[in-house]
Amino acid sequence: MRIGLLGCGNVGAAFVKLVNERAAAIAERTGITLSIVKVAVREPKADRGLALPAGVLVTDVNAVVEDPNVDLIVEVMGGISPAREAITAALGKGKPVVTANKALLAETGAEMFGVADATGVDLLFEAAVAGGIPFIRPLRESLRGEPIGRVMGIVNGTTNFILTKMTEEGADYGDVLREAQRLGFAEADPTADVEAFDAASKCAIIASIAFAADVRASDVHREGITTVTAADIAVARRLGYVIKLLAIAERTNGSNQLSVRVHPAMVPVTHPLASVREAYNAVFVEGAAVGSLMFYGRGAGGDPTASAVLGDVIDAAINLKKGTHATLGTFTRPAFTPIDDTTSEYLLSLEVLDQPGVLHAITGVFAKHGVSIRAAEQVGIGENARLVFITHSAREASVQQCLADFAGLGVVKNADGFIRVVGR
Amino acid sequence: MRIGLLGCGNVGAAFVKLVNERAAAIAERTGITLSIVKVAVREPKADRGLALPAGVLVTDVNAVVEDPNVDLIVEVMGGISPAREAITAALGKGKPVVTANKALLAETGAEMFGVADATGVDLLFEAAVAGGIPFIRPLRESLRGEPIGRVMGIVNGTTNFILTKMTEEGADYGDVLREAQRLGFAEADPTADVEAFDAASKCAIIASIAFAADVRASDVHREGITTVTAADIAVARRLGYVIKLLAIAERTNGSNQLSVRVHPAMVPVTHPLASVREAYNAVFVEGAAVGSLMFYGRGAGGDPTASAVLGDVIDAAINLKKGTHATLGTFTRPAFTPIDDTTSEYLLSLEVLDQPGVLHAITGVFAKHGVSIRAAEQVGIGENARLVFITHSAREASVQQCLADFAGLGVVKNADGFIRVVGR
Repeated sequence: MRIGLLGCGNVGAAFVKLVNERAAAIAERTGITLSIVKVAVREPKADRGLALPAGVLVTDVNAVVEDPNVDLIVEVMGGISPAREAITAALGKGKPVVTANKALLAETGAEMFGVADATGVDLLFEAAVAGGIPFIRPLRESLRGEPIGRVMGIVNGTTNFILTKMTEEGADYGDVLREAQRLGFAEADPTADVEAFDAASKCAIIASIAFAADVRASDVHREGITTVTAADIAVARRLGYVIKLLAIAERTNGSNQLSVRVHPAMVPVTHPLASVREAYNAVFVEGAAVGSLMFYGRGAGGDPTASAVLGDVIDAAINLKKGTHATLGTFTRPAFTPIDDTTSEYLLSLEVLDQPGVLHAITGVFAKHGVSIRAAEQVGIGENARLVFITHSAREASVQQCLADFAGLGVVKNADGFIRVVGR
Repeated sequence: MRIGLLGCGNVGAAFVKLVNERAAAIAERTGITLSIVKVAVREPKADRGLALPAGVLVTDVNAVVEDPNVDLIVEVMGGISPAREAITAALGKGKPVVTANKALLAETGAEMFGVADATGVDLLFEAAVAGGIPFIRPLRESLRGEPIGRVMGIVNGTTNFILTKMTEEGADYGDVLREAQRLGFAEADPTADVEAFDAASKCAIIASIAFAADVRASDVHREGITTVTAADIAVARRLGYVIKLLAIAERTNGSNQLSVRVHPAMVPVTHPLASVREAYNAVFVEGAAVGSLMFYGRGAGGDPTASAVLGDVIDAAINLKKGTHATLGTFTRPAFTPIDDTTSEYLLSLEVLDQPGVLHAITGVFAKHGVSIRAAEQVGIGENARLVFITHSAREASVQQCLADFAGLGVVKNADGFIRVVGR
């Protein structure tokens, strides 16, 4: 099975090493001999620490896809173009494709899956979400007969590392971000991670597969972690919760719509997602009969991602040899529930003047908008007081109206502390 | 796709209900229409709350397997015979088999897998280990190219429920066992669970799949939880550990041997296995490139197990339609590392006389057997003292020799507190 590799960065180089190390063992176990015969890169002279024979490295993506000696394509260059055209061309030629390209699938997944189905050729992408965690395959295959109600994922290692440090060391966001950058867990420009663009792309792919729907990154409501404070985390912790950045995809309105969103959430410490620490990822699935499932592991990094790519390559190679392929089905555009129409429990933290009538004014706002309170506490902070409320399940728009009304009350100094409570 | 069902107890009845509820949705999504055409049961008159057409229920297993109108067999009756003969006969007739039969696979798995491979027919068994958790398929397929070093599982819900209650409520084993029996989490005769026979069977199947080896329940070193005390749990907790019953399958001696064992173990509270509470199960996998993975979910119960069976049935049906099947490979007998030759860290808890020279005598025993101490503490208990040691990684036989020597020292009143430390 002759592999053409598109891209040879961190994941690509790790994949080349894995194939070199393991080809003999894989051949013995499966009867399939893997070899990498052509690799398209931008900079053929760069030192990748790989012993590739002369002539393997080329700069032309098409030269790999079109090469009659290439049976199967591994795409790890990322980005929309030319990955989209290359994958389409490869599938059209009957060459299975294994991709780790999250951005491409979050933009054009349904189109790509349609091409794969129409050509009857494998398009596998385990590595595109949650790196090395085998999660796409179980969702697509093992749970094929199981109606999924909700999927919740910790799918970004950088933000989980930052939130873990903030939780366990009581540190501030800015300090932890700088530490993460120093350790290589965060980029110099951390926007894609901390503003949850990365998680939103993964949320779209997860929703697509879980609900057989055409969901794109731009459909996903997105809030990052830059506004989460050490004080929020301390309050959450005292109440028995941790704060996690969750990608949530769920059926809403009697399963007629989908809600897809990424935002910080308070999760009870006893919930399995609460114990996912540092740069680890996990995906929590709620099915009708199967109950709760969780898949946990390394969501990024060259070796784990390359391992997921290799698993897909072996699978595609076996299928190619047998003349079969995985069935993806059709993906249609769903109706989405806007964030205002979703329901959740909420933690609201208000800084108020410590004077008579304040609590009465605030509870009047809750009553006006039909928001019911499950728990409340007040602590003195100097001349002011902090009021912390946890609501019963409420509509997002109603809670936002409460916050707007609080801002208009003279006695409320600050109503910024707002976080959704999930998984109780 | 006409299904013949062998057995209609808890799982079988849940499976019939799932098929009835979901057949239309599955047909729409996969093009495969599932129907249950024949069911073999011991007591056809028993009320199962199922609306099965007349003539579907029979008492003869062979009548189901041999029926030319049956395309696929689901075996959920359990036990070795007649399940073994029925599965062999079905595979011989080219009928795929989906089984949840842990006892059978733990005894005769390699033989059954061999029959399936020889006949080129699917034998799927996701439900046989860890109930509804999709774990066998990822291990067999996604991780096909990944050398697995170790698998550790919490695979028995009853014992995990008991240990969770003991940990969180400080309760005694006997009290919690009675509560578990009252709640239906433990059988009237709890031996199979609390003495780890059930976990040993699952350990054998996990080891077979992870290492492509012929491992049987009788190969598994087995220690149950009946000797775990509230005091052990309190000491573990104070040191930052919880006690779990772990099924462990690992490569040993430079990957030339396997160690397979089930025993209570101290796991750091930050380890993902530590957060698996109540009757939930989880399987933790350590791969060379992929790193640590964990699969979590409901390990038992009619609905979760039936969901796993249904996933396999859809898979087998698609394969049958395509004329293909999952490849299992060959399973040969491995060499096993006896428990005495395994290495671990250990917690040892000794009750000793509180007098001069005691610590010197005890440390002399450790030194004699080459066991190195990582941490030690002493607390007074009345006229005596309790000494708690955690060793560095040591050979089991050496630690056992220490315990034997301690028993011979007059100053040691009790040297029963012994537990392996895993996952640090």
